[in-house]
Amino acid sequence: MAYRFSRRIVSTPKSFIRETLKATQAADIISFAGGLPNPECIDTAGIGRAAADVIREDGKRALQYATTEGHEPLREYIAERYRRRYGLDAQPDEILITNGSQQCLDLIGKVLIDAGDAVAIERPGYLGAIQAFSLYEPVFQPVPLAPDGPDTGVLEETLRTHEPAFFYGIPNAQNPSGITYSDRRRRECAKILAEYETVFVEDDAYGELRFDGKAMVPVARHLPGLGVMTGSFSKIFSPGMRLGWIYAPADLYEKLVIAKQASDLHSNYLSQRILSRYLEANDIDAHIATIRDAYRMRAQVMVQSMEELFPDGVAFTRPEGGMFVWVTFPEGISSLELFERALAHRVVMLPGVPFYTDGGGESTGRFNFTNADPETIRKGIGIIGDLLREMRG
Amino acid sequence: MAYRFSRRIVSTPKSFIRETLKATQAADIISFAGGLPNPECIDTAGIGRAAADVIREDGKRALQYATTEGHEPLREYIAERYRRRYGLDAQPDEILITNGSQQCLDLIGKVLIDAGDAVAIERPGYLGAIQAFSLYEPVFQPVPLAPDGPDTGVLEETLRTHEPAFFYGIPNAQNPSGITYSDRRRRECAKILAEYETVFVEDDAYGELRFDGKAMVPVARHLPGLGVMTGSFSKIFSPGMRLGWIYAPADLYEKLVIAKQASDLHSNYLSQRILSRYLEANDIDAHIATIRDAYRMRAQVMVQSMEELFPDGVAFTRPEGGMFVWVTFPEGISSLELFERALAHRVVMLPGVPFYTDGGGESTGRFNFTNADPETIRKGIGIIGDLLREMRG
Repeated sequence: MAYRFSRRIVSTPKSFIRETLKATQAADIISFAGGLPNPECIDTAGIGRAAADVIREDGKRALQYATTEGHEPLREYIAERYRRRYGLDAQPDEILITNGSQQCLDLIGKVLIDAGDAVAIERPGYLGAIQAFSLYEPVFQPVPLAPDGPDTGVLEETLRTHEPAFFYGIPNAQNPSGITYSDRRRRECAKILAEYETVFVEDDAYGELRFDGKAMVPVARHLPGLGVMTGSFSKIFSPGMRLGWIYAPADLYEKLVIAKQASDLHSNYLSQRILSRYLEANDIDAHIATIRDAYRMRAQVMVQSMEELFPDGVAFTRPEGGMFVWVTFPEGISSLELFERALAHRVVMLPGVPFYTDGGGESTGRFNFTNADPETIRKGIGIIGDLLREMRG
Repeated sequence: MAYRFSRRIVSTPKSFIRETLKATQAADIISFAGGLPNPECIDTAGIGRAAADVIREDGKRALQYATTEGHEPLREYIAERYRRRYGLDAQPDEILITNGSQQCLDLIGKVLIDAGDAVAIERPGYLGAIQAFSLYEPVFQPVPLAPDGPDTGVLEETLRTHEPAFFYGIPNAQNPSGITYSDRRRRECAKILAEYETVFVEDDAYGELRFDGKAMVPVARHLPGLGVMTGSFSKIFSPGMRLGWIYAPADLYEKLVIAKQASDLHSNYLSQRILSRYLEANDIDAHIATIRDAYRMRAQVMVQSMEELFPDGVAFTRPEGGMFVWVTFPEGISSLELFERALAHRVVMLPGVPFYTDGGGESTGRFNFTNADPETIRKGIGIIGDLLREMRG
């Protein structure tokens, strides 16, 4: 059958990340390709207790239909944490529970993008966002990342010339680059966005995973009425339960709720209840501190291994948080070729090309450090170092 | 702030159903408005055991990221049930796990509708589908329902004249009308759809809830390559866990997976595992039989109450399954006015207007019978009967 597909789906590529992950799930593979939390950082026992409590005490309600906006105590928890941690004036009726961060991006695309609209995005940009927004047929306008945040000259020029529907960025430990915006850069971005009355979609999937544990002031704090934040419990609780949220001003919130209703009525209510119970019964800050320690140590091992085992001329970021190191290979080294060669040696990383909405990035790659133990990280980086020498050879 | 919203979201109304439900959740209200399963039909204890088993035995994996397509044994279960119950040649790689039926509609809209495309839909049509598809800006072409299924003359004319992206219908115990397509009508629809090479989106949320327990042959069986089915565990397991599925031919399936990836990566994996475990450890057919008995009895009570307590001139369907009776009041009776008056007497039903994509339906209403006990049903119908007599003066 020749189906008559929509224009949007025909123009959306399959996610390279997920396809790659599927091909590389064999047990003997050293994988730097994914973005999986370390299994040791998932509190299975605590989640088991919370699940048992919720089903025993209030199962009939926890298993029934629920409201689109999400479980009220969970929304209050998130708002309160924003107030305390980020100094934001957040209220529960500005928090919409979603199926992980990814659905935030889909709903924002649904509500803000018409076909042909410009969307400003970091260069390199987060692949999941590129894919989610693509379905609403925007024209991406990339804003290059400097080591301390977006190139504000390009940002201003982009807002002035293209009047994008919004600017999407990840100020804390960006995916894929690992870059964190400096405080100065955050203020500059906010000033420009306010001047051009442009919404900033501030993806904060990694804000809790800053290695020093200190919260940086989000751009949204400098951008009243134009800041939309997205958050996720995938990295600090469980990715399999697909729970995230959007924090948005009232008018925008109302439209996001309509889009959410139409998309799937509401997010898994049992899981919202389990999470809410877990947060009541456990010290999430202590749990996050454990994750942070585990990831900081692994990031250090990865960066040190790269320093020692990569040939000269390879550049890489030194992340202050999150899950990724971004590598720039010497000119002429194709990371797609490196991917193929490394796979033959049972090591995988992610070539950088799909993170560029305007082409380029052939000599870049994303390395995840959270899902392997330190010895494995060192071993895998060593193998890639050898391959790089071979390829330059 | 005046945000620049997308055209699609501006033209999508908030769900009347969900807004109504919110307004009518007070404990003392007799509600025929929603579509909630009876809480007694949710096996809380069995789900609790399954949850404990999954988390204890394989928690690390059940709480981690998973594949977009869904849990393989669950997909095999669904395919096998289709083969056995419906005689379909279904394979697990044609089954995509979704967040309930509602997400099926969103994904199908994403993949098959371009703005301005025609979409054929029953008249009256399912409100959740109207809302989901609306976000992709189609032009609805309603096909009136006769007591035994769609008016096939109008269906043929619609396919010929408007070449819709697909025809969407609910052959078993349709929502809102309660009508079930006859076997003859199913074959006629399939013949016309095949002739015009038009996809049929066959929503089968209520196929398991036919009161006589016998499966009717789905339209998809007569429509190879053009049949897409959607299913739901909300009515037979738990709505709060938001689990459903799409059954689609390979080419279409591939696009749906891309749309699903972009929408939320994958459905809640812990819940998929709990459901899969539940299906292994319990006799779901016995559980479904219990639900069927409970709903058949309530449907009988509602229909009998309407026969006895409604004034002459009110027509209503006698459903063979599902959750709803559809009522047509005498001309001149506004069901919106009835809604307001009944609410003042603490009884609610759903006015029929939002189920009509082309206007009309002012004197119709949907009555849910699954979520109240028999005495309450009789009492509520009595109150509405009195109001109808009052309104006719």
